Amino acid sequence: MSSKVIAAVMPAPRVPVELREFDEPDLPVGGALLRTAMSEVCGTDVHLWHGRLSGVPYPIIPGHVTTGTLDKARGTLKDVQGNILNEGDRLAFFDVHRTCGKCLACTANRTPTRCPSRRVYGITDSATEGLFGGWSQKVYLEPGVVVAKLPDRVTFEDYIGGGCGLLTSVHIIERAKIVMGDTVVVQGAGAVGMCSAALARKAGAAQVIIIGAPASRLELAGRMGADAVINIDTASPDERIAQVMALTNGIGADVVIEAAGSPRAFEEGVRMARNGGAYVIAGHYTNTGDSTINAHEHINRKHLDIRGCWGSEAGHFLRALTILDRYRDEIPFKDIGAKTYGLTEINEALEVAASMAIPKALVDPWR
Amino acid sequence: MSSKVIAAVMPAPRVPVELREFDEPDLPVGGALLRTAMSEVCGTDVHLWHGRLSGVPYPIIPGHVTTGTLDKARGTLKDVQGNILNEGDRLAFFDVHRTCGKCLACTANRTPTRCPSRRVYGITDSATEGLFGGWSQKVYLEPGVVVAKLPDRVTFEDYIGGGCGLLTSVHIIERAKIVMGDTVVVQGAGAVGMCSAALARKAGAAQVIIIGAPASRLELAGRMGADAVINIDTASPDERIAQVMALTNGIGADVVIEAAGSPRAFEEGVRMARNGGAYVIAGHYTNTGDSTINAHEHINRKHLDIRGCWGSEAGHFLRALTILDRYRDEIPFKDIGAKTYGLTEINEALEVAASMAIPKALVDPWR
Amino acid sequence: MSSKVIAAVMPAPRVPVELREFDEPDLPVGGALLRTAMSEVCGTDVHLWHGRLSGVPYPIIPGHVTTGTLDKARGTLKDVQGNILNEGDRLAFFDVHRTCGKCLACTANRTPTRCPSRRVYGITDSATEGLFGGWSQKVYLEPGVVVAKLPDRVTFEDYIGGGCGLLTSVHIIERAKIVMGDTVVVQGAGAVGMCSAALARKAGAAQVIIIGAPASRLELAGRMGADAVINIDTASPDERIAQVMALTNGIGADVVIEAAGSPRAFEEGVRMARNGGAYVIAGHYTNTGDSTINAHEHINRKHLDIRGCWGSEAGHFLRALTILDRYRDEIPFKDIGAKTYGLTEINEALEVAASMAIPKALVDPWR
Amino acid sequence: MSSKVIAAVMPAPRVPVELREFDEPDLPVGGALLRTAMSEVCGTDVHLWHGRLSGVPYPIIPGHVTTGTLDKARGTLKDVQGNILNEGDRLAFFDVHRTCGKCLACTANRTPTRCPSRRVYGITDSATEGLFGGWSQKVYLEPGVVVAKLPDRVTFEDYIGGGCGLLTSVHIIERAKIVMGDTVVVQGAGAVGMCSAALARKAGAAQVIIIGAPASRLELAGRMGADAVINIDTASPDERIAQVMALTNGIGADVVIEAAGSPRAFEEGVRMARNGGAYVIAGHYTNTGDSTINAHEHINRKHLDIRGCWGSEAGHFLRALTILDRYRDEIPFKDIGAKTYGLTEINEALEVAASMAIPKALVDPWR
Repeated sequence: MSSKVIAAVMPAPRVPVELREFDEPDLPVGGALLRTAMSEVCGTDVHLWHGRLSGVPYPIIPGHVTTGTLDKARGTLKDVQGNILNEGDRLAFFDVHRTCGKCLACTANRTPTRCPSRRVYGITDSATEGLFGGWSQKVYLEPGVVVAKLPDRVTFEDYIGGGCGLLTSVHIIERAKIVMGDTVVVQGAGAVGMCSAALARKAGAAQVIIIGAPASRLELAGRMGADAVINIDTASPDERIAQVMALTNGIGADVVIEAAGSPRAFEEGVRMARNGGAYVIAGHYTNTGDSTINAHEHINRKHLDIRGCWGSEAGHFLRALTILDRYRDEIPFKDIGAKTYGLTEINEALEVAASMAIPKALVDPWR
Repeated sequence: MSSKVIAAVMPAPRVPVELREFDEPDLPVGGALLRTAMSEVCGTDVHLWHGRLSGVPYPIIPGHVTTGTLDKARGTLKDVQGNILNEGDRLAFFDVHRTCGKCLACTANRTPTRCPSRRVYGITDSATEGLFGGWSQKVYLEPGVVVAKLPDRVTFEDYIGGGCGLLTSVHIIERAKIVMGDTVVVQGAGAVGMCSAALARKAGAAQVIIIGAPASRLELAGRMGADAVINIDTASPDERIAQVMALTNGIGADVVIEAAGSPRAFEEGVRMARNGGAYVIAGHYTNTGDSTINAHEHINRKHLDIRGCWGSEAGHFLRALTILDRYRDEIPFKDIGAKTYGLTEINEALEVAASMAIPKALVDPWR
Repeated sequence: MSSKVIAAVMPAPRVPVELREFDEPDLPVGGALLRTAMSEVCGTDVHLWHGRLSGVPYPIIPGHVTTGTLDKARGTLKDVQGNILNEGDRLAFFDVHRTCGKCLACTANRTPTRCPSRRVYGITDSATEGLFGGWSQKVYLEPGVVVAKLPDRVTFEDYIGGGCGLLTSVHIIERAKIVMGDTVVVQGAGAVGMCSAALARKAGAAQVIIIGAPASRLELAGRMGADAVINIDTASPDERIAQVMALTNGIGADVVIEAAGSPRAFEEGVRMARNGGAYVIAGHYTNTGDSTINAHEHINRKHLDIRGCWGSEAGHFLRALTILDRYRDEIPFKDIGAKTYGLTEINEALEVAASMAIPKALVDPWR
Repeated sequence: MSSKVIAAVMPAPRVPVELREFDEPDLPVGGALLRTAMSEVCGTDVHLWHGRLSGVPYPIIPGHVTTGTLDKARGTLKDVQGNILNEGDRLAFFDVHRTCGKCLACTANRTPTRCPSRRVYGITDSATEGLFGGWSQKVYLEPGVVVAKLPDRVTFEDYIGGGCGLLTSVHIIERAKIVMGDTVVVQGAGAVGMCSAALARKAGAAQVIIIGAPASRLELAGRMGADAVINIDTASPDERIAQVMALTNGIGADVVIEAAGSPRAFEEGVRMARNGGAYVIAGHYTNTGDSTINAHEHINRKHLDIRGCWGSEAGHFLRALTILDRYRDEIPFKDIGAKTYGLTEINEALEVAASMAIPKALVDPWR
């Protein structure tokens, strides 16, 4: 009859994460507790650890995308289609737990990911406020959070392998507006890049080229659906551009997706897109410096579309579940989650994630 | 019974334009001659004179947008709706006289302004090939050129006041996808900027802010529909951004249109657009240098759309005529054409255009 | 120190509306009371009275779009931009007071007007639940309702003259995707039709044709921006189609907007649209019977887009305020509100509205 | 040194097709002759035979989509990327051999399939004008026709198996705007329906349901990518609708594609689409009668998009080749072409096609 919960807390940037014990919260009506099965260490967590995001209310419990089973609910917890959820059900939930639904961003401008009141699990809520992160044995599901049952065929490993990178990729693909037969270049072979490459293929791209490193990630990207890979460790920027041109009859890619987060990638990407093509910029989650862009050469004369893509919406989360259900046998999402760590190993997991040695480190808080 | 035609020829970059006499051409079936009433000196002509465009087959007869009366036709000349055109009819024609209609740009990619075979009056055809420019008493209308009667109410001055800037602006407004009630910022108070400001208002913008100089152009921009003007001679870049923020409740503009052609304008414009807004880049017709852009701050996190816009299509030309017909009483297009020059005064006209002293110099080759 | 509120209650379909006295409600935190200045009798109220809508929880207080002053608030009431609202402020509020924000309609499908949990003032809430309608001296503003100050220049009469028809029209115009220079036909000269005609003009239509009756409404439609009117009392369906063709060089309208609510209008409208045009169907709020449509002739071969348009979203409400602020001097929205009735005259107002003798009857519950 | 060409000519509707001998044409510069490898008998040919299309200039040589080898060219024949084509090259060409490129449909309205000057192989050109159809040993390639080499991996059987149904389907899928994870219903299991189902899957649909008959076609549709099939021979209209609802959690399909050509299909399809969904109507190539549609229930309240889709453009042809190249191993396009007939068997082939006994009959004029 334990009512204690152990969580990994990031007390401040650039100090070790430590374990703390919390009381199980009293649930308000509509609230629930998730028994965590698996969470992840994503690039955002490394940024949080390095202090690269502003306004973060440390101490925090990191872990924004998480899955597990329903531990308990006060009142009836329902999914978005009105189905009642029961204790023990395998659940996923949308990590953006609040947008206001009323501001210009949420309404007239239709960009809810830019709502000033947006709150995200694992990032915007202090550990003093509650169990708002997945590096915890239990996670508090606030009333109103969008919750769904994992489809039967989708394992915890599938879901967390896709993780936040998959959600972002669903948004990216929406922005990319791929037309059947397009060639799509993806810059970056992290979780976002690999998921974007996989989805681009399934969304009608006839040729997907992924650019990144190391070779092991590129190999996985190939298994996920990339037709061609370009290794940045061995090909120079000019060679990369030349390879894309060679693969596109000298025309350039119909769509380029930036999931690399480097100013150089932006400079390279505008050179890889064809006249009248599209370029989705999604990897610049933090400020890594300025790019030098010639507006004449690479935007105006090229009649190019550049589309920033920020975060994801509840609809992307719901579509991600459908996509996992449909393609889990064809796309090895679970292989992105290369290694699983317990809470006591979390600092090691962060080091590994920061080193980019593996595609993604997972967290099992009961391990 | 004269069959001689006098035209102003630009023999090479950076030398004076000179008058030459040409024989009237023998017309092929479907070809026609236009008796020029008015042509214009647009920014492109200054670029041509300064040698800033590559691949130009000097000597050329400049003057890409031109209007006049039908002088003669071999066979029946028809407008796009199949109406027969008669001698003496007041005509306009689309200055892009060839695109291939078959290449990827023309077909699958739907960007005919990027067709590699595109030919434009006054720019891409040598004077040795024929009367392919409006700085000539007569202009050769090649078979297949899109020709239209000027609507009865539209004077030569109305049409040429809009000129190529209006055609480009029709394309810009299409790319801008203005939603009713939007605030639109236009950077640049040249012919393109002023026409874009005017059209933005008529396309549903509830507030149009134009940024440019000198004061006389801004005054005209106000009469054309701008609600607010910001003078770059008196406001610093930071002040300009601050003014846009003040006029938009601190949110930024829904749409920013770049019609300034300066690398600094690009850097400024991304700061003026709101989260989830749009930025149309249309002024970088030539290479004026690089811009320094922070992809995180100004594109990715902003969820911004940047849309290059190149040239115009036949459909924009046809819509421009409808727009002139509808709004010529409300928008003083003709006041953009500030002063008219004869062919012997053409070097003076170029000097004036290069100095930006007046919005636009017109050319009357019979004067 | 009166705490009583008088409201007009519709006890059931097809019986007289009667006055009832209510206690002022105890406000929850975030709740507020509006002192009604003006509400309206719109077509929906006539439908409610005639019992044509299913699932209505009679008795109800009708009146969905309403304006007035802030009477009192419990806690701080803010507008969507975070500005604090004070007692006495002139307010408008979005009549859809609840959507879930979580279901497929609200998220993945982006059609919040089809949210199964949608609740609308004056329609979906029983009088036993509270003051959820504008035919009442005071209206209960539930926590979370989207509230805005009326712009200074916008009078109560302006706002209510536009009313729910304006909000719907903002949505219609969004769906219509008008391109500058288009010809737009509007079927129906009620509040929705007139507002749509007015907005179409301001959104870039070069020619707006409205079709309806009686002559007095068409006269007002002309003052609101219609360029041409076709009176259905004097022109047969074939004559109407012929007139539209004559006004469009035999091509048909680029966009047709159905705001008539008749099965015959649908049959007529598909004949008026041009090849590749668009047809927005917005007037069929209730079931008035079937239409006979030839899919080959009027949809497939015509490459036609038909777009149903249901209700309005908070963003449309906010844009409507901007539109009123910008155009109230150019578009006589207030003239739609032809006559004002007190609560004791409400049955007469309903009779008048049902007879369509005037464009719209207003309600002043303090009169 | 034979210069005679044998072709099958349809002299008039409702009479037998007969063989005629033609002289090889003198080629103009830019013209070419294709040695036919394979053509098809598509639904249009049956319509032509039954006299259901108006304005057809009988006698005609049917066969609009055709493939073969380059027999001879006068001058240099190039593909759309400027590559020179040589005798013996395996070619495909776009069957729409002329649109004007100047009219409102071709320019401002961007609907070239509605160009009044459109000419299509096998339909709009009389046999007296030349070899404009594929039921001929050689086909005249007019200067300007869009020609492409078949990709190396794509066999004649692959190409003609897709045939005109594939081209139309590429257009349909463009109009359908499928979002990843959508459920798509396809009504009709002919060549267009099967290709649409296959492409929908590859364009991101997570679930594709095809409705048609007979069982053999549904079996092939399953192999092409349909996840579920509904046999109209065994399920009533109400049962079909119920099955779609059951497969979509009671919500309806995101996208419905009509490729059945029956008025009843239209009535059924609007009932299968979800709120805010899309319905592409592409099967009504001829007039098969009127549909009875309730605009309130099925369009307005449903906030439904209905999109007519007519013909295909050169861009769709080019994308079809990319699609064949990419997916020929995954989608058995060639199995649509069930049986091949020689020219002497062509009346039998028409009977078989009219009976719908096989998905598609092919024509080998050298057999």
